[in-house]
Amino acid sequence: MWVIFLAAPKTQVECDYDGPAMKTQVPGPRSQELTKQLGEIQNVGAVNFFCNYNESRGNYLVDVDGNRMLDLYTQISSIPLGYNHPALIKLMAHPDNLSTIVNRPALGILPPGNFPEKLMESLLSVAPSGMTRVQTMACGSCSNENAYKAMFIWYRERGHNTPSAEDLSSCMVNQGPGCPDLSILSFMGGFHGRTLGCLATTHSKAIHKVDVPSLDWPIAPFPKLKYPLEEFARENAQEEARCLEEAEDQIVKWRHKGKPVAGIVIEPIQAEGGDNHASPEFFKSLRNIARKHGCAFHVDEVQTGGGCTGKFWAHEHWGMDDPGDIVSFSKKLLTGGFYHKNELQPYRIFNTWMGDPSKNLFLTEVLNVIRTENLLEEVTRSGKALLNGLYELQVRVFASRGQGTFCAIDVCDDATRTSIILKARNKGVVLGGCGDRSIRFRPALVFKEYHVHLFLNIFNDVLAQHK
Amino acid sequence: MWVIFLAAPKTQVECDYDGPAMKTQVPGPRSQELTKQLGEIQNVGAVNFFCNYNESRGNYLVDVDGNRMLDLYTQISSIPLGYNHPALIKLMAHPDNLSTIVNRPALGILPPGNFPEKLMESLLSVAPSGMTRVQTMACGSCSNENAYKAMFIWYRERGHNTPSAEDLSSCMVNQGPGCPDLSILSFMGGFHGRTLGCLATTHSKAIHKVDVPSLDWPIAPFPKLKYPLEEFARENAQEEARCLEEAEDQIVKWRHKGKPVAGIVIEPIQAEGGDNHASPEFFKSLRNIARKHGCAFHVDEVQTGGGCTGKFWAHEHWGMDDPGDIVSFSKKLLTGGFYHKNELQPYRIFNTWMGDPSKNLFLTEVLNVIRTENLLEEVTRSGKALLNGLYELQVRVFASRGQGTFCAIDVCDDATRTSIILKARNKGVVLGGCGDRSIRFRPALVFKEYHVHLFLNIFNDVLAQHK
Repeated sequence: MWVIFLAAPKTQVECDYDGPAMKTQVPGPRSQELTKQLGEIQNVGAVNFFCNYNESRGNYLVDVDGNRMLDLYTQISSIPLGYNHPALIKLMAHPDNLSTIVNRPALGILPPGNFPEKLMESLLSVAPSGMTRVQTMACGSCSNENAYKAMFIWYRERGHNTPSAEDLSSCMVNQGPGCPDLSILSFMGGFHGRTLGCLATTHSKAIHKVDVPSLDWPIAPFPKLKYPLEEFARENAQEEARCLEEAEDQIVKWRHKGKPVAGIVIEPIQAEGGDNHASPEFFKSLRNIARKHGCAFHVDEVQTGGGCTGKFWAHEHWGMDDPGDIVSFSKKLLTGGFYHKNELQPYRIFNTWMGDPSKNLFLTEVLNVIRTENLLEEVTRSGKALLNGLYELQVRVFASRGQGTFCAIDVCDDATRTSIILKARNKGVVLGGCGDRSIRFRPALVFKEYHVHLFLNIFNDVLAQHK
Repeated sequence: MWVIFLAAPKTQVECDYDGPAMKTQVPGPRSQELTKQLGEIQNVGAVNFFCNYNESRGNYLVDVDGNRMLDLYTQISSIPLGYNHPALIKLMAHPDNLSTIVNRPALGILPPGNFPEKLMESLLSVAPSGMTRVQTMACGSCSNENAYKAMFIWYRERGHNTPSAEDLSSCMVNQGPGCPDLSILSFMGGFHGRTLGCLATTHSKAIHKVDVPSLDWPIAPFPKLKYPLEEFARENAQEEARCLEEAEDQIVKWRHKGKPVAGIVIEPIQAEGGDNHASPEFFKSLRNIARKHGCAFHVDEVQTGGGCTGKFWAHEHWGMDDPGDIVSFSKKLLTGGFYHKNELQPYRIFNTWMGDPSKNLFLTEVLNVIRTENLLEEVTRSGKALLNGLYELQVRVFASRGQGTFCAIDVCDDATRTSIILKARNKGVVLGGCGDRSIRFRPALVFKEYHVHLFLNIFNDVLAQHK
């Protein structure tokens, strides 16, 4: 209907700059002015600086003061191909896509004609093993909230498929038996979102949870492993065994309390909680515990999914045919949502938008680029270089760990971390923290070995200056 | 950076068709085929038919079988200017906007340089009385979830600003005092979303709530008024007084139970629950009850906001300078979010995306069109014609009611309603239901008197045939 001619961007050949370039301290004067302006409208306690997304490109984030920084944080791990990837810009030239962006449908009742095809091309083409069904959602929290509901409904429907009259009347006033006392088992240090249901399973920082009512649901310890994993194999195995035993105990205990565990939710690597890893054996055993006790197994890949670990899903590193009953996603996938097994028919999972098909369009293109540019291999290669480089810094940092470019280190305390992150930023590198005293690395999938070395040089200087 | 040339759409002068045009029954063969395809991927229990959004225009929704229907449902009331409004298409030609659509930022930490300005032009330009602050969110449920959290945090911070060590440790395991036993008072028949926190305040249909764990929070009756309101003024006033008394009783009762009410949430017109109205006096009294008991007052305008009642916010019909402490929105506003008073500083309200600035862009343009085309006046005019027309049908329908074009009728039962909606669709009119036996009318803001008469003629035929 409409035709758009897209003039080639001046720098289309180069989709990346050749290095950081700093003009001011960050935040610079313009950022500070804008922070003051925005402070009149909303809380700006978490604002780092203001960005010029028009000028940002590839691995480089440009701010409103003209500073150009190598970005190893990528909007909390949510920019898959770096900034302004030409393939995504080009996509907007197709007239069908224009109308998809302008007219947001209520996907659950009136999907666009190309919706099944677009789901096949995008989300279904990277479906986790054993999962053929997917439901999109607007964000990560909504994805997990609705995944929990799918697990509750599944758990109840095994017993009786049709709710009784008493179920229907009692649920209207939030009471049982209609609203059952079911629970979700989560792990200390886990992060699954900050809406009320998700928050009851989030245990990464007190400041996320304090003052908000919660649900009496079981919490198991997540293994606290020593790194490098290979060097502490025996101790780590013991720690994992302890945590598995405790998880199983919790399931039994909550069943006796009359609040049976309908599902277990876990991240393949606890991200917000401090980049805590566990072995494939741990996850295999936990999956078996879920099966044994009739609980659904929900793998939350909101932060780990999308290729940053060198595989599209972090759970692929477990090498299992049947890794879970539900896998949720968001961030780098651009749309939120969850995959699920056939048995967990999410009947009654519904809201107005149910996602946003314009995000599916972009995801299709992201997946094409990942394939044609072999980005998973690139991530594996860059990740190795990054981790090796971090090992070499071990004199000043601790517990270097990672999978692909999804890496982290610990420093001695929170104050040191803040100081390092701010110093790095003023030298043109954007980093983020996680856990109590970790720095996490979350570059885009287009972060090459060249960028790794650029980063390591600057980071080495920061650490040297910092002593 | 990029330049886009936008060729004029063939029908740019005419942004609307001249009437419905039906080729098949709905769903037609192509829709049926696509439903089967999508059924392999996700639950299609709620899918009506598949749409061709490319060909849809103004008040007309075109399906994949080439049927063109007058749309009085607008994607569950979420399309403000009809389909493919030229102003929205044109907006995508600006290169800055391109990069806003392609690079979704983490707004809470790295907002784009134009974010304060865009918020001023869009959301702040229509801020409810007494509210100068706004927080965007990805959808309606997230908006309400986070608004509830803002009320809980506000309620607690009055007592002690710094959480104690015990608060911080107990909240990590979902227990008090860190996770306090606070509650939100909601109303029977209300709808505020379907994530766990929202769902505890939603009481419109059992099927939304059954099988999902909930919170023991107080619920007050919403007035069941008789229509037309003017004819039953005395009885309606008595009914409202009864509900107010009960609401206040619940607040006292829950305080005694040790679960004080931090906030009251209510819709200006209960939409999903069956288009239930209440008088400005009812809302004024309830606002006073909230003040008296130290509860925050949250007006949920997710469905009523955006101009469809003839004012931008439905609560403007109450004529109050201080209508509430929080007003949440989504749907026709294109972005979710909530306004709040200064006192409710939503510190600690945070997630990765915090909304989507590309939606703010479209909202700015929607507001421009509303102003330049005097759409609120048009809605008032069309609404009067619509309601008058519905009154004339009173022989066959009941309780015609509405504000602006936000109108509804009752029919004798659910089966009759389904039959009427399907018959209307096959005659080229898209309608939706709400409550037990209501049909709601939710046309776009560009629904003119001409469209009202077109609709009434068809609807009259449907009802006549239906007898």
